[in-house]
Amino acid sequence: MRHFEQQLELLRQRLLEMGALVESAIFRSVSMLIDRDPAQAERVRHDEDRINRLEIEIDELATSLLALDQPVAIDLRLITAAIKINTDLERMGDLAVNITGWALDSLGRASMKSPVDIPQMAQRAQSMVHSALDAFVHRDAELARAVLTADDAVDGMRDAIYSTLIEVMEKDSAAVRPAVALMFVAHNLERIADHATNLAEDVLFLLEGVDVRHHSEVRG
Amino acid sequence: MRHFEQQLELLRQRLLEMGALVESAIFRSVSMLIDRDPAQAERVRHDEDRINRLEIEIDELATSLLALDQPVAIDLRLITAAIKINTDLERMGDLAVNITGWALDSLGRASMKSPVDIPQMAQRAQSMVHSALDAFVHRDAELARAVLTADDAVDGMRDAIYSTLIEVMEKDSAAVRPAVALMFVAHNLERIADHATNLAEDVLFLLEGVDVRHHSEVRG
Repeated sequence: MRHFEQQLELLRQRLLEMGALVESAIFRSVSMLIDRDPAQAERVRHDEDRINRLEIEIDELATSLLALDQPVAIDLRLITAAIKINTDLERMGDLAVNITGWALDSLGRASMKSPVDIPQMAQRAQSMVHSALDAFVHRDAELARAVLTADDAVDGMRDAIYSTLIEVMEKDSAAVRPAVALMFVAHNLERIADHATNLAEDVLFLLEGVDVRHHSEVRG
Repeated sequence: MRHFEQQLELLRQRLLEMGALVESAIFRSVSMLIDRDPAQAERVRHDEDRINRLEIEIDELATSLLALDQPVAIDLRLITAAIKINTDLERMGDLAVNITGWALDSLGRASMKSPVDIPQMAQRAQSMVHSALDAFVHRDAELARAVLTADDAVDGMRDAIYSTLIEVMEKDSAAVRPAVALMFVAHNLERIADHATNLAEDVLFLLEGVDVRHHSEVRG
């Protein structure tokens, strides 16, 4: 295997490693909220440290491939896609950390049975991240398109959760603080799903050379 | 001027054009909320269309520069910085559109005197975007560092706004819906400030080759 191909394979491996850490961080941040387990915050922070180091490593790897090997066509698209995927994964790690912040906020207060299904929404968002990375690894355009469609379902779940929580707050002033925390958890999950969508769009651009951003008709 | 330098100059111009549109979109989205002027939503949507088209144009320009001219060192850093700045600017446009969504939500309801200073926070966020782009154009590392410091002030404003709004909601159930809208406007402004910070970090990397991401001690 040429040096260039070895480095490209390393780039791919590092992105997958980062993706696995992001999935773990999402799962743990929501577990923290649901199981009221503060120890998860430390683990998410640990995942995020590793994610941040990987972000820098991947950027350096991509830049050195661009500088030294002067790639063209498909390889160039792979490297520019890697730079974008890298940014999206790092933001997802930040969003998982945000969730632990809101979870910590509710741990300090009396337990409230959640009137909304956060775990289901989390599971959907996590599965979108997983599918988008799978689409990247297996060069599977169909799977990438399925991620774009799944985003609408997550948006719908978020809207339903907001409506329920606003009603809860209007009826019971003691529920305001915990409900605000749940609203922002739902918001962060929806943003994770958005980044998974960006990632799927980058995979489609990589595979087909077609820019599907901002063309909602392609997403249906 | 060589073709390469002309294209690089074009890339710079397009980023500035996009930055001006983003600033306009932020200003208009907040005006819509404050002046209760629904016509601004259409203008923000128009700005965003143009921002989305510029994003694709800039990516294509950057990719063709990488492919055709095989740049090295500072030029390569400029082009990879442009790819990242482009993404950040486009997301800021999306966030301005989010603000118009929440503003529209409150226009449908009775007017409430805002208990928090959204325009001041908006002005700060907008000024961070402006400074980060100025730092990029004038290659001004000091100005880029000032943007990183300003982000802490915006975070503080956001936290104060959240606290005030939670108290308002706890006291008056009729204030829940408008207060939730204001919370999310503050959230979107804080996110715009975050993206301006990313942009300033990219400028510092471009100018000094030092990656200041995830190193809070560098941020003063």
